[in-house]
Amino acid sequence: MPITVVRTKAELRSEIARLTAEHGGRRGATPSLGLAPTMGALHNGHRMLAEAAVAANDVVVASVFVNPLQFGDPKDLERYPRTLDADAALLDAIGVDLVFAPSVEEMYPGGEPLVRVTAGPLAEKWEGASRPGHFDGVLTVVSKLFHLASPGPVAGRPVAFRAYFGQKDAQQLAIVRRMVKDLDFPVDVVGVPIVRAEDGLALSSRNQFLNDGDREAALVLSRALRLMDERATAHQPLEPDDAVALIKSQPGVELDYFEVVDADTLEPLAFNCRETPFTGEALAIVAARVGEVRLIDNMPLKAS
Amino acid sequence: MPITVVRTKAELRSEIARLTAEHGGRRGATPSLGLAPTMGALHNGHRMLAEAAVAANDVVVASVFVNPLQFGDPKDLERYPRTLDADAALLDAIGVDLVFAPSVEEMYPGGEPLVRVTAGPLAEKWEGASRPGHFDGVLTVVSKLFHLASPGPVAGRPVAFRAYFGQKDAQQLAIVRRMVKDLDFPVDVVGVPIVRAEDGLALSSRNQFLNDGDREAALVLSRALRLMDERATAHQPLEPDDAVALIKSQPGVELDYFEVVDADTLEPLAFNCRETPFTGEALAIVAARVGEVRLIDNMPLKAS
Repeated sequence: MPITVVRTKAELRSEIARLTAEHGGRRGATPSLGLAPTMGALHNGHRMLAEAAVAANDVVVASVFVNPLQFGDPKDLERYPRTLDADAALLDAIGVDLVFAPSVEEMYPGGEPLVRVTAGPLAEKWEGASRPGHFDGVLTVVSKLFHLASPGPVAGRPVAFRAYFGQKDAQQLAIVRRMVKDLDFPVDVVGVPIVRAEDGLALSSRNQFLNDGDREAALVLSRALRLMDERATAHQPLEPDDAVALIKSQPGVELDYFEVVDADTLEPLAFNCRETPFTGEALAIVAARVGEVRLIDNMPLKAS
Repeated sequence: MPITVVRTKAELRSEIARLTAEHGGRRGATPSLGLAPTMGALHNGHRMLAEAAVAANDVVVASVFVNPLQFGDPKDLERYPRTLDADAALLDAIGVDLVFAPSVEEMYPGGEPLVRVTAGPLAEKWEGASRPGHFDGVLTVVSKLFHLASPGPVAGRPVAFRAYFGQKDAQQLAIVRRMVKDLDFPVDVVGVPIVRAEDGLALSSRNQFLNDGDREAALVLSRALRLMDERATAHQPLEPDDAVALIKSQPGVELDYFEVVDADTLEPLAFNCRETPFTGEALAIVAARVGEVRLIDNMPLKAS
């Protein structure tokens, strides 16, 4: 069936009811609904997100909403690309059933919400340190989307509700997982791996603002992450200072942070990064400004 | 059927699924579930709450949980009365189907939540001013209860989900309503009127800590509210200063605030309280310390 684009909460609810009643359970005993929240300007990273949702659920909803609450800088909000027609076509081709693309007034009638969800200490570091209020804005809109898209009844059977987030925004993913746990949201959060261009650059809607020189320079970020990955796989000491030195040696790249952390708590690993051989699992995270653009990237590490 | 008391989230979910499947729709086209969140130590005010829920819903769940997050003073938390057996018996007699009485560890596994719901500016005044963090604690646990008790599917029909809160905690009710609106919770919030003793004192679990003299003195609060109510009904100027003077003339009562406010925004009415005849609707709110006990009360005002 061709994709449906709805603009209001009421249409979203009724379309979800219709679609889950019609298609719920077509894959097996438990009917399922997948939600892929996005800000639009979809690229191949989002494609993976939507494909993962389509592969696992009877009905898939993608939201396209540039959420003002999570932008600190009004200029950044204004220049964030909006490409709804292309986004809907891409989602349609993948097999997504429904796009929810509300206006700001539809999402926040009467202005910004007074009651919000706050991320607490998990938002103090890394991205949160340079983007105050960002993750509170993310959690507030995500909690609304979870409530709006949570599936209703399908023929007397509970509906599995899954929400898909990119591993690219690793801190966002960790904080959303924590929100679901702390507030008992009835949803399973699924993390979807980063998609990289052939040269290694992690796909991002912001990459289009990089000029050719910036883009070349930006490759140092994934090179630094791969260095950690190779050492982790090889059971060697990570020595993250080497990655830092590599990035700092690249002209045009201004490093914000590079760290090896626990993927859930986002706390730096106190152990086994230096001198001792790496064991277990961790996450290497990096943020840097390249030209006018702030880029983030990360890589899961696992000792083989 | 006799009431069931469950202690875990998993039991709560499976009992709600069982009960709504068994009894959902027995009253009409739309199956319904009512939730009455309480901290236990139930009195006749809670009875009204539970009765309102039983009268309107196929299945009714009451929660009994003394939520540490909403207590500022550990002594207050410790001495809050816990009377689960009596509470369950009272709820059983009213016709409530299920009691959810989790431990603190069950509600907050691993300690206090990092991600929370925050009440924002609505929590800065009145009760919030003397109880910092209180309403954030309330919203956080209420959002968990809404997620845990939200009804699943019943024979292909959407289930009406209603939550019952006492008008006694007027600011809490206004803030919960605002949370539901701001975060798009799929629940209808129902406010249940205050129940008063014959002498006019609003019922409260804290009244048991009043000695005879305190209790006599405390009656000045409802007298002051009634004064406003009489003037509002008679379309007279309210002159709230008269109510303040009345309370201040009562030995043993230490007034915190007395105000006439808009029931949704909790902002003081700028108009028609003094000199001009009262029109429309409003809410008179009061808080005072009587002996060792902080008491709150309120009364809806309506020009006849």
